[in-house]
Amino acid sequence: MAKSKFEYVKQFEAEDRCLPNCWIVVRIDGKSFHRFADTHHFVKPNDDRSLNLMTKAAQSVIEDFKDIVLAYGQSDEYSFVFRKHTNMHNRRGSKLMTNLVSLFSSSFVYHWPRYFHTQPLQYPPAFDARIVLYPSDQNLKDYLSWRQADCHINNLYNTCFWKLVQEKGMSPALSQERLKGTLSSDKNEMLYTEFDLNYNNLPEMHRKGSLLLRRKQKASEDMNNSMSSQLSFGSQDFQENCRVRTQTIVLHCDIISEKFWTENPEILNSKK
Amino acid sequence: MAKSKFEYVKQFEAEDRCLPNCWIVVRIDGKSFHRFADTHHFVKPNDDRSLNLMTKAAQSVIEDFKDIVLAYGQSDEYSFVFRKHTNMHNRRGSKLMTNLVSLFSSSFVYHWPRYFHTQPLQYPPAFDARIVLYPSDQNLKDYLSWRQADCHINNLYNTCFWKLVQEKGMSPALSQERLKGTLSSDKNEMLYTEFDLNYNNLPEMHRKGSLLLRRKQKASEDMNNSMSSQLSFGSQDFQENCRVRTQTIVLHCDIISEKFWTENPEILNSKK
Amino acid sequence: MAKSKFEYVKQFEAEDRCLPNCWIVVRIDGKSFHRFADTHHFVKPNDDRSLNLMTKAAQSVIEDFKDIVLAYGQSDEYSFVFRKHTNMHNRRGSKLMTNLVSLFSSSFVYHWPRYFHTQPLQYPPAFDARIVLYPSDQNLKDYLSWRQADCHINNLYNTCFWKLVQEKGMSPALSQERLKGTLSSDKNEMLYTEFDLNYNNLPEMHRKGSLLLRRKQKASEDMNNSMSSQLSFGSQDFQENCRVRTQTIVLHCDIISEKFWTENPEILNSKK
Amino acid sequence: MAKSKFEYVKQFEAEDRCLPNCWIVVRIDGKSFHRFADTHHFVKPNDDRSLNLMTKAAQSVIEDFKDIVLAYGQSDEYSFVFRKHTNMHNRRGSKLMTNLVSLFSSSFVYHWPRYFHTQPLQYPPAFDARIVLYPSDQNLKDYLSWRQADCHINNLYNTCFWKLVQEKGMSPALSQERLKGTLSSDKNEMLYTEFDLNYNNLPEMHRKGSLLLRRKQKASEDMNNSMSSQLSFGSQDFQENCRVRTQTIVLHCDIISEKFWTENPEILNSKK
Repeated sequence: MAKSKFEYVKQFEAEDRCLPNCWIVVRIDGKSFHRFADTHHFVKPNDDRSLNLMTKAAQSVIEDFKDIVLAYGQSDEYSFVFRKHTNMHNRRGSKLMTNLVSLFSSSFVYHWPRYFHTQPLQYPPAFDARIVLYPSDQNLKDYLSWRQADCHINNLYNTCFWKLVQEKGMSPALSQERLKGTLSSDKNEMLYTEFDLNYNNLPEMHRKGSLLLRRKQKASEDMNNSMSSQLSFGSQDFQENCRVRTQTIVLHCDIISEKFWTENPEILNSKK
Repeated sequence: MAKSKFEYVKQFEAEDRCLPNCWIVVRIDGKSFHRFADTHHFVKPNDDRSLNLMTKAAQSVIEDFKDIVLAYGQSDEYSFVFRKHTNMHNRRGSKLMTNLVSLFSSSFVYHWPRYFHTQPLQYPPAFDARIVLYPSDQNLKDYLSWRQADCHINNLYNTCFWKLVQEKGMSPALSQERLKGTLSSDKNEMLYTEFDLNYNNLPEMHRKGSLLLRRKQKASEDMNNSMSSQLSFGSQDFQENCRVRTQTIVLHCDIISEKFWTENPEILNSKK
Repeated sequence: MAKSKFEYVKQFEAEDRCLPNCWIVVRIDGKSFHRFADTHHFVKPNDDRSLNLMTKAAQSVIEDFKDIVLAYGQSDEYSFVFRKHTNMHNRRGSKLMTNLVSLFSSSFVYHWPRYFHTQPLQYPPAFDARIVLYPSDQNLKDYLSWRQADCHINNLYNTCFWKLVQEKGMSPALSQERLKGTLSSDKNEMLYTEFDLNYNNLPEMHRKGSLLLRRKQKASEDMNNSMSSQLSFGSQDFQENCRVRTQTIVLHCDIISEKFWTENPEILNSKK
Repeated sequence: MAKSKFEYVKQFEAEDRCLPNCWIVVRIDGKSFHRFADTHHFVKPNDDRSLNLMTKAAQSVIEDFKDIVLAYGQSDEYSFVFRKHTNMHNRRGSKLMTNLVSLFSSSFVYHWPRYFHTQPLQYPPAFDARIVLYPSDQNLKDYLSWRQADCHINNLYNTCFWKLVQEKGMSPALSQERLKGTLSSDKNEMLYTEFDLNYNNLPEMHRKGSLLLRRKQKASEDMNNSMSSQLSFGSQDFQENCRVRTQTIVLHCDIISEKFWTENPEILNSKK
């Protein structure tokens, strides 16, 4: 059988190497997640089971892709940031985004029972992924600020919307009408006066989203005590020198203000 | 919160629309599947549970991506062919391949228990995907021939290799040495004389791989009787006109010879 | 001096190989040619000196780029079609279009005096170029039809416009107003009744544009007699076998109707 | 005539927008310039007529492309650097490089007589162009250092080579053999001891290449006195405020050492 006769078709594959010296960001996004949320009776406006499952899947990705320095997630999306000089998969964009979204998706299904317990998964969900390059540190920070600002805006809106629907019995259409054109300050005021709710007291995970970071530490330290708003996951990544272990930590903090970057300078200066 | 201030980062996203009037092929491929096969005690040289699970996951993809006209799989890979004029996701390459590989991966995990029964999945697997454009029908046929020739060559080799290891007790290194430089005819001869095995009597699924096609038919017909080597899957896709249903059928036939294309002209002439 | 220290910057160059088995078309286009035409007192609506100079420059390109099978030009643009399987410059898009537009531009300036005689070139003109891939013969024919239809539409309009301005003394604004919304038939009628002009009697070069083809022939034949509307250029390309010479011929014929392609089948079937 | 029927072919054009926030470099390079130099009897190892004509053509480009902040040339190549945030041609790579190389080429031919006087141009020359993106200032500096290091290495080699050929009467092959494996220090030593030549006394234009910069100044100042190694070109670019004019200046200085960038901070900080 003449194999070689057909092999010319390999030449039709195009190269898609990412420009060097740029931050590589892969963002995954749930496909038709409105329907998925409805089918699986997600709690509104935020379903903690789903949010934690998303974060668990993101953690699987980070543990496998050693060159990811940070992940940020909210709602049905997660962004992954590779260190600037990664040479993983020779920086081929297709390889990076397809491998990543594949592992995220299979992890999401794999870990489903851990978060949804007896409620079965009705059908396999899908995510899409895109890859974006950011040349400067400021571009990268602005990208992450963009996603966190999006989280805030959507969460404030959704909190109001579902209060109107769930507690005032308004129809979705009426609630939407009521919120049309309101400013952030209007919505905060409404929550306070009409529902006796201080928005700032809502869980940080809902207001800020989730940030995954790697932390190297001596095995003797108890990492979990070192930062206030963090959740520690069990899986650890033991290194060649057993005294140092890398742990993925989860934060729900402000990443828009410069303070975060000043306090965590190693993220942008990450070496292999 | 100034959302707009950060939104400029969207401009860094690049367009990756596929050239019109070309066949779009997405091929997914298992990542580190040697290790995955070992961990899950795959039968050698072919594990039917895994092959059927791959085909089940491919079927999930085909049912969701209406513009896929054909899928071909073997070993830990599957190729999906979109109709030439598809406008799905506006022909954006990233969208197509990430959505597809994501659904394939989550389906693989979702349907695992159906094929591996009580044997649990040890960890979530990953696949990569690539997208390739083929301008002409001949290029597309040659692409599929390339994959089927690859299936044949690998299966013949693996059949010999594992016979030597499993039945003659040879070490992998020795078996490899024994097969080095042999022609197909040598391997066929070896199987026949040393193992009393006629290669052509081995299961077609192992020798030819699996081909998924859509078939529209009147509801009254019994599709399953119409082709010899096919497996029918339960899921069906009922159309607006309830008299016609689309069914995915699985074949294990020769797609290298022109005969297949002559007998199935509608594949290359597929309209929406 | 550490040369190697800096050489890493070469890695930032991206590959831009054209998809195989596609027609490669490079179209060049005059930049700011309205101003260029005004500065050099071009005759309106068509300046034969400029059109012939464009064709001369195109001919220089064809003589240097052996894999170009056809060129079509009108107004300040020229399209060049490479044979489908060209491997020139390894099919790198940047190389092909920059080399081509560079040679076209320098030829335009080089041959200027031959067509504009004592009228000096006031400043160096510029062209841009784009590269487009067409997978099928029909796509390529439609591309060329698109350009020739554009030629016809513009020339009919411009003929009317300048008749109104030059012979009726109307202002450009008024002429434009007069032609607004008119159909082709209206314009033909107007030329006939108001200016006693049968549009179809105007020069074919103005109505159809210019087509450059290569012709191989025995040295003894007189090519010039074989087709009616052709202009022969002096330069010839003698081949290894001196009995055969390749000549670039210029036609001003219809390339929209299938007839042209039936009569010239070798264009689409061109081999090296 | 159905124009619209054919217009679908426009959809085959691909977008090639350059990533924002990157330095855009276009480098043009002479095609087959060995032959061109031989045909036109270039002086070896450096022909000042050709070098100055290259610089004149580069100057034409800079005057037309207002967003170019710097050009660097040596031998038959020239690199053009656009300001980081240029939005010229919507950052479309094809447009930028084809327009630039076209103007460079036509200017080269246009200005030929000014530098080669009565020696006629034998045929129109061609250049190619490539576009490369550099995310950081350091990458850009390293790119320019790479080109200047290349200039130095080639010029030192060529100076030795042609001394051996022209003054010692050695054959090209023998000269090449003699220089094989020699270090820079060997070549400097050879020039000094065998040809009584101090390499550092050779013209800076040959050793350093040519750098084109824009300088804005008050009309009253005499720019030409302000820097030692500069050549002033006559053409000036008068701005809206007539008191300020932009002038292109030519330097032959070291751009590898940090000193140059410290003294000319406005190049990297250029605004529109």
